[in-house]
Amino acid sequence: MTVRLLTELSAPAITAALGPDSVLVLPTGAIEQHGPHLPVATDLIAAQSLAERVVEQFGEELDLWLLPPLAYTKSNEHAWSGGTFWLSAATLLAVLDDLGRCVAKTPARRLAFLNGHGGNSALLQVAARDLRLAHGLRTFTLHPGVPADQGGESPVEELGMGVHGGLEETSLMLHLRPDLVDMSAADRWVPEHLDDYRHVRFGGSVSFGWTSDDFGPSGVIGDATGATAERGEQRAKAMVAHLGEAFAEVARFDPSPRP
Amino acid sequence: MTVRLLTELSAPAITAALGPDSVLVLPTGAIEQHGPHLPVATDLIAAQSLAERVVEQFGEELDLWLLPPLAYTKSNEHAWSGGTFWLSAATLLAVLDDLGRCVAKTPARRLAFLNGHGGNSALLQVAARDLRLAHGLRTFTLHPGVPADQGGESPVEELGMGVHGGLEETSLMLHLRPDLVDMSAADRWVPEHLDDYRHVRFGGSVSFGWTSDDFGPSGVIGDATGATAERGEQRAKAMVAHLGEAFAEVARFDPSPRP
Amino acid sequence: MTVRLLTELSAPAITAALGPDSVLVLPTGAIEQHGPHLPVATDLIAAQSLAERVVEQFGEELDLWLLPPLAYTKSNEHAWSGGTFWLSAATLLAVLDDLGRCVAKTPARRLAFLNGHGGNSALLQVAARDLRLAHGLRTFTLHPGVPADQGGESPVEELGMGVHGGLEETSLMLHLRPDLVDMSAADRWVPEHLDDYRHVRFGGSVSFGWTSDDFGPSGVIGDATGATAERGEQRAKAMVAHLGEAFAEVARFDPSPRP
Amino acid sequence: MTVRLLTELSAPAITAALGPDSVLVLPTGAIEQHGPHLPVATDLIAAQSLAERVVEQFGEELDLWLLPPLAYTKSNEHAWSGGTFWLSAATLLAVLDDLGRCVAKTPARRLAFLNGHGGNSALLQVAARDLRLAHGLRTFTLHPGVPADQGGESPVEELGMGVHGGLEETSLMLHLRPDLVDMSAADRWVPEHLDDYRHVRFGGSVSFGWTSDDFGPSGVIGDATGATAERGEQRAKAMVAHLGEAFAEVARFDPSPRP
Amino acid sequence: MTVRLLTELSAPAITAALGPDSVLVLPTGAIEQHGPHLPVATDLIAAQSLAERVVEQFGEELDLWLLPPLAYTKSNEHAWSGGTFWLSAATLLAVLDDLGRCVAKTPARRLAFLNGHGGNSALLQVAARDLRLAHGLRTFTLHPGVPADQGGESPVEELGMGVHGGLEETSLMLHLRPDLVDMSAADRWVPEHLDDYRHVRFGGSVSFGWTSDDFGPSGVIGDATGATAERGEQRAKAMVAHLGEAFAEVARFDPSPRP
Amino acid sequence: MTVRLLTELSAPAITAALGPDSVLVLPTGAIEQHGPHLPVATDLIAAQSLAERVVEQFGEELDLWLLPPLAYTKSNEHAWSGGTFWLSAATLLAVLDDLGRCVAKTPARRLAFLNGHGGNSALLQVAARDLRLAHGLRTFTLHPGVPADQGGESPVEELGMGVHGGLEETSLMLHLRPDLVDMSAADRWVPEHLDDYRHVRFGGSVSFGWTSDDFGPSGVIGDATGATAERGEQRAKAMVAHLGEAFAEVARFDPSPRP
Repeated sequence: MTVRLLTELSAPAITAALGPDSVLVLPTGAIEQHGPHLPVATDLIAAQSLAERVVEQFGEELDLWLLPPLAYTKSNEHAWSGGTFWLSAATLLAVLDDLGRCVAKTPARRLAFLNGHGGNSALLQVAARDLRLAHGLRTFTLHPGVPADQGGESPVEELGMGVHGGLEETSLMLHLRPDLVDMSAADRWVPEHLDDYRHVRFGGSVSFGWTSDDFGPSGVIGDATGATAERGEQRAKAMVAHLGEAFAEVARFDPSPRP
Repeated sequence: MTVRLLTELSAPAITAALGPDSVLVLPTGAIEQHGPHLPVATDLIAAQSLAERVVEQFGEELDLWLLPPLAYTKSNEHAWSGGTFWLSAATLLAVLDDLGRCVAKTPARRLAFLNGHGGNSALLQVAARDLRLAHGLRTFTLHPGVPADQGGESPVEELGMGVHGGLEETSLMLHLRPDLVDMSAADRWVPEHLDDYRHVRFGGSVSFGWTSDDFGPSGVIGDATGATAERGEQRAKAMVAHLGEAFAEVARFDPSPRP
Repeated sequence: MTVRLLTELSAPAITAALGPDSVLVLPTGAIEQHGPHLPVATDLIAAQSLAERVVEQFGEELDLWLLPPLAYTKSNEHAWSGGTFWLSAATLLAVLDDLGRCVAKTPARRLAFLNGHGGNSALLQVAARDLRLAHGLRTFTLHPGVPADQGGESPVEELGMGVHGGLEETSLMLHLRPDLVDMSAADRWVPEHLDDYRHVRFGGSVSFGWTSDDFGPSGVIGDATGATAERGEQRAKAMVAHLGEAFAEVARFDPSPRP
Repeated sequence: MTVRLLTELSAPAITAALGPDSVLVLPTGAIEQHGPHLPVATDLIAAQSLAERVVEQFGEELDLWLLPPLAYTKSNEHAWSGGTFWLSAATLLAVLDDLGRCVAKTPARRLAFLNGHGGNSALLQVAARDLRLAHGLRTFTLHPGVPADQGGESPVEELGMGVHGGLEETSLMLHLRPDLVDMSAADRWVPEHLDDYRHVRFGGSVSFGWTSDDFGPSGVIGDATGATAERGEQRAKAMVAHLGEAFAEVARFDPSPRP
Repeated sequence: MTVRLLTELSAPAITAALGPDSVLVLPTGAIEQHGPHLPVATDLIAAQSLAERVVEQFGEELDLWLLPPLAYTKSNEHAWSGGTFWLSAATLLAVLDDLGRCVAKTPARRLAFLNGHGGNSALLQVAARDLRLAHGLRTFTLHPGVPADQGGESPVEELGMGVHGGLEETSLMLHLRPDLVDMSAADRWVPEHLDDYRHVRFGGSVSFGWTSDDFGPSGVIGDATGATAERGEQRAKAMVAHLGEAFAEVARFDPSPRP
Repeated sequence: MTVRLLTELSAPAITAALGPDSVLVLPTGAIEQHGPHLPVATDLIAAQSLAERVVEQFGEELDLWLLPPLAYTKSNEHAWSGGTFWLSAATLLAVLDDLGRCVAKTPARRLAFLNGHGGNSALLQVAARDLRLAHGLRTFTLHPGVPADQGGESPVEELGMGVHGGLEETSLMLHLRPDLVDMSAADRWVPEHLDDYRHVRFGGSVSFGWTSDDFGPSGVIGDATGATAERGEQRAKAMVAHLGEAFAEVARFDPSPRP
C-alpha cells in the first residue's frame, strides 16, 4: 500500500478524508529519450519516487494525498526519437482541465503538480491559472529541483547546461533505480558553443524553442560521466527536504488580503 | 524492475529491442467510484496487475512489451461521485491518437489496449480503427474478462448484472489487493427490475446510455457479499491464461489475403 | 407523407405532440463502398427503410417519431475507396452532441439511434452515454440485426464473416431496392484464413482495428452469390418484428430503483 | 430510383462515372421552426425537391450528380424554439471539410452546395474557400432563390422582409408539399418598424446578428396569408430554370487566365 | 491620444463610460498580398484609418468606442503568397467568441465589426449571430464600401471585377498612405474571361470558392493604373459619411416589436 | 512610416527583403485591467513602443522586422474585471500556430515574441517549441524587463511584488504615454502577507495559479505612488539597450554542434 495514495480509498472514504485544505499531489513525469544510459521513464520515476517520499514524510502533517502520476506529458522536444511518448499541448491541457474538474467534485480545493520534467513547466503554469478560473481550485506547480534551464543551478563542469541526462539527473537515477542506469553508455555532450551567448541560453533572459536534436545527435545535454549514487542520494534528500518546506506553504497558502 | 516494461529501457535500447511484430501493451484502467468497499483505482489495479502477469508469463515468447498504464480514462458513468477522475471522449481520443503517433515512431507496429474498465470499450474500438488509419498500426482491444454488459457471463445470483463492484470484481480485488477491500461495507445492489427487459439490458441487443446513479445511490451494480479471494485467484488465473492465448494470436495476426 | 416523420410537423405541433416518453428515432446510415454489386448508400437505405417500417407499424402505440437520417457517418474502414463519404470520430460526436442538445429542447426525453452501419456502433455507444450526461436524455442504440462482428450470427457458408456486402446484406437489398443491386457483380470474398483465429476475429473476444482493404482489394467481406430477395424479405420481417419488441422496451424503460 | 443520385451507384461505378468536371450537388436544408403553418423541414424539402428537379432536367447534359442532403445545418437563429435541430458553426464546418475530403477521393473536382436555408449562406461561403484550399476542389454555393436578406427581392406587401415563412416560402411549400401546410395557421408578422432603417435591415449595407425571436414570438418574418400553390409553382419553375442556367456555368467554370 | 480609443481608459473608467447602448467598434483588417504596388497591410490600414475618422466625427454623438484592430484575419485566398498572414476559420471564430465574451463583461451590449477585408465578410456574419446567441450582444458588420464581389459597384473599366488591389483600393491608399504605394509597379490584371459568366462571377448569384492565384500569378484583380489620391480622398469621404449614417442606425437599432 | 514595419511592404518586397536569418518581431501586448490609474492597453503600449525603438535602433544592423502586435492575448488573471479582453489558451495557441505557418511561408526562419505581458510568458514558451517543431522556425521569447514574478527584480518598497500596475510599470507609462496615466488614482496595494512565504510567492520556487482579485479588489499588485517619468525613461533606455544585446544574439543564434 502506497502511503496516502488517494485512489486506494473508496469513493465514500475519499469524500470523508478530504477537506478544502487537503492537497492533491499529481506527479507529472515524462516518457522520453534520455540518452543511451538512462531509461525513457526517467522523469516519471523521479517524479513518482520523490512524490511518494514527500507524502510519506509530510503527508499526514500537511494533509497531502497522492494521485496516480501522469506518465505521458509534453515531451515534444524529443519527438524526433523513438521511445518518446508525448501529448500535444492541446491534449495535455485538456487532460489537466478534465482532472481539475474532477478534483472540484471532491471536497479538496488544492491541487499541486509535482513536476519531474522541465518540458512541462510552462504548460503546467498555463493550466494552473486556467484551472483556478474554471474550477475554483488553488493550484501549484512544484519541481523537485529547479531545472537548469529555468533558473536552477547546474554544475560548472557542465557549463550550467546540464538540462537533460546530465550529472544530476544521472546521479539521481543511480540512487533511485541503479538497475536502470547503464554507466558504460554515459557520455558528455555539452553544447559548449552556447556558452558564447549571454541571453539566449538555458536559463537566460531569452528563452528559445529548442528540440534536443538541435544540439547534436546525442540526445543528452550535460555530462553524465561523473555521476554517482552518493551524489544522487544527497540530491534526493535535499529535494525531499525542499519539497517538504514548499508543501508546508502550499498547504496553508492564502493570498486573500488580511483584515 | 517490472518484467519487460518498455519504458525502463533507454531510447536506443527500445529501437534495438522492437521489431514490426512486437506488441506494445497499454493497460487502460480507471479511477472511479466502485462502491463503499472497493478503491476507486480498482480497474487500474486490475488492468495493470493482469498485464504484468501476462507479460511476465508470455512476454518473451510473444515479444510483448508493457507500457505505463493510463490511469485516467472514460468514467463519466460515475461522474456524479467525488473520487471519480475521468477524461472526456474528445480528450481520451486525443491522448490515444498522440500515443499512436509515438508508437509509429518506434519499429513496433502492434499496439494492444488491455482494458480493465468496461466504460472504455466502445471508445477504444473507435480509437483502434482511427489509429490503424492515421498511423498504420495494427491495433487490438483485449479485456481480462469480457464485461457482463458486453456479452460476458455474470453469476446467476446477480441476474447477469454484476457489472460494477459485484461478485467477480470484488473477488478479484480480494486476491490482488486484499488490503484495499472492506468486506464489511460490501453489499448487494442488483437492479432486479431490469430483469423484466429482454432487449434493453446489460449485454442485451439494445445498448443504453446509463450512469451508475440511474440505478440508485449505491454506486454498485452487483452483489459483492459472497466475494472471496479464492474465487478471485481462480478468476485471475483464468484471465491470464485466456489473455495468453489471445496475445498469441495478436502477435501473429495477419488479415492479408493469402497468396 | 412519411408516417410520423417528426420534421413534417410545425414547431408548435412538435411541442404539442411530444411528451417525456416520446421516442425520437434517428436512423444512422452510411455512404461507403459495398463492393461492386451494392450501392454505396446500402446502409442508409437499410436503416431508413426499416426505421420507416417500424415507425409505421409501432409508432402510434409506442409514441415513436422518426427523424431525418444521418447519411454520412463513421465509415473510415472504407476510406481507401472513392465513393465512401465519412465523418471523423470528432465530427460525428459533435454532430450527435448538437442533435442531443436540440432533442433536449423538445418535451421528448428519449432518443434512439437506429443504426444500419456496424462501423458506427462503438461511437454511438460513446455518444449515448455522453448525451445522457450532457443533456439528460435517455439514449438507446438499436440495430436491425446484430452485426456479425458484434456478436450476431452469420451464415456458415461465410464462416461467420459476412460482415460487409455478404449474403444477408445483399439479400436485404434485393428485397428493399432490387433496382440497385447488380448480382452479376456479386462475388465471394471470405478471408478464410481468419478462421484460424479463435480470439482475434469478427465477434471474437479481441476486437481489432481493421480497414476493409486489410483483407484484400475486393471491399466485400462475405459471400453475396447466394443472395435472394426472398431471404431478404424474411430477414426484413424478422428485423422489424425484433425492433418492434425492442422499441416496446425502449418506450417504457426505467432504470430507477423501484420503491 | 432518384435520377442521378450518386449514392445509388456502387463504388466502382462511381469511379467510372465521374470525371474532373462532374459536379456533385449537395443540397443543404435545415430543420427549424417555420411558424405554425409550415413544417420544420421546410428548407430541407425545398432544397432537396429543387435539387432533384434540376438534376433530372439538366443532369445528363451538365454531368450533375446528386448527393444525399444535409438535413441538419446552421439554424441557431431559431435555437430558442423546440423543433429546431441545428449544428454549431464548428460542427458544420467540420462536416463540410470531411465531405470535401471524400469528394477529393473521387475523380470529381466540382462540389456545389444547393442551399435551401439562408442561415447557411455565410458559413457555406467560408467552407467553399476552405475546401478549395484544403482539398483542391472547385466549390460553388447556389440558392434556388436569392434570400431577401441577401439581396433578393421580396414582395412589397412584406416590405421586403419576407425572409422566413412568408409569402414566397409558403407558396413554394403549397406547391411542393401542400399536405404539410396549414393555411389556417398562416399569419402575417412583418417587423414594420425595421422599415425605418436604411442600413441595418434585411439585405441592407449593415448585416446584423439576429435571432428570429428578436422580432417577436411568432417565429415568422413575412406574410403567409396570401400564399397560393400557383404562385409557388411559378416560383419553382423559375428557380429550376435559373438553377439550370447557373449549373451550366458551374459545369464549365474556369477562372484560369486564358493563354 | 486616439479619440475615444476605449483601451486608453482604465478599467474603472471603462465601466463608468459605457452603457448598454454604447457601440464598441472593432476594425478587422488583414495582412495579405495586395500585388506589387500595395503593402500587405492595406486592409488593416484602411479599416483602422476609416474607423478612427468615423469615431472622431461621430463618436461622441453616437457613443462609439474604438477597439484595437484585428490585424490578422481570414486571408486564405492569398495563402499561396509569402507576406500573407492569416488565421483559419476555426481560429478566427474562436478569437471573436473570446472577444464577445469580454464585451459582455462590460456594460456595453453593442459590438460592430468595421471590416476592411472582403474575405472576412462571411465569417463575420457567422460570428455576429453566434455572439448574439452566446453572449447576448447586438452585433453588426459594416464595410467602408461594399466589396465588388458582394454586391458593391466597381468601375466599368475593371468590368466590375476590381476586388483586390484595383482602382478604388489603390486610390484609397494613395490618399491614406501615399508613402506606401508604388505606382510604378501598378498594373492591370482583370480576368476578362470571367465576364462570360452571368452567374458565377464576383457578386453573381453563384458564389465560388476562389483563391487569388486562380486568376493568374499577379495577385491583383482589377486595374490600379488609373488610381489617384483625389479619387481616394473622395471615396474616403463618402465612406466616412456612409459609415456615419450607418452607425447612427447601429446605435439605436432595436428589432423588438413595438407595443 | 514605422521603421521596418514588415507589413508596410508589398508581398514581393517582403520576399525580396527577407532571408533565413531575418528576425520577425511580434510584440505581444495585452488589454487588461491595470488598476484605476493606468489604461487597459498598458502592456500593448509598452510592448509596441519598445519594439519600435528596438527595431529603429538595431533593425538594420540585425535584420529585424516588426510585425503588427497582438493586442489581445492571455489575460485571464484579470477576467473578473470589465475592460479585460482575453483569449483562451487554446485560442491563443491556435493564433500563434497560424502565424508560425505564415512566417514559414516567407524566407525568414526566425520569429521572436517581444512580450509585454507576464501572463503570456508560459504560453509563449509552449508555442515557441511547438512552432519550432511544426514549422521549422527558430523561435524566441523576449521580455523588455524580466517580470518580478519570473525572476526579475522589483523594488524593495514593493517587497519584490511589483508585478502589476506598480512602480516600474507606472513609471514606464509616465514616460511613454503620460497622457494616459492618472497619478491621482495611483495607490499602493502590496499583499504584504505573501512575504511570509518563501516558496509560494512571485518568483518563488513554487508557482501558483492566481487571479489578480485573489489579492483584493484593487487590481493593482505593487505601489504606483512613487512613480515618475524620469524613472520610466531610465528604465525604457535600459530595456532597449538590453533588448538590443539580446536581439544581437537572437539574430546569430545557432545551437548546432560545431564541427
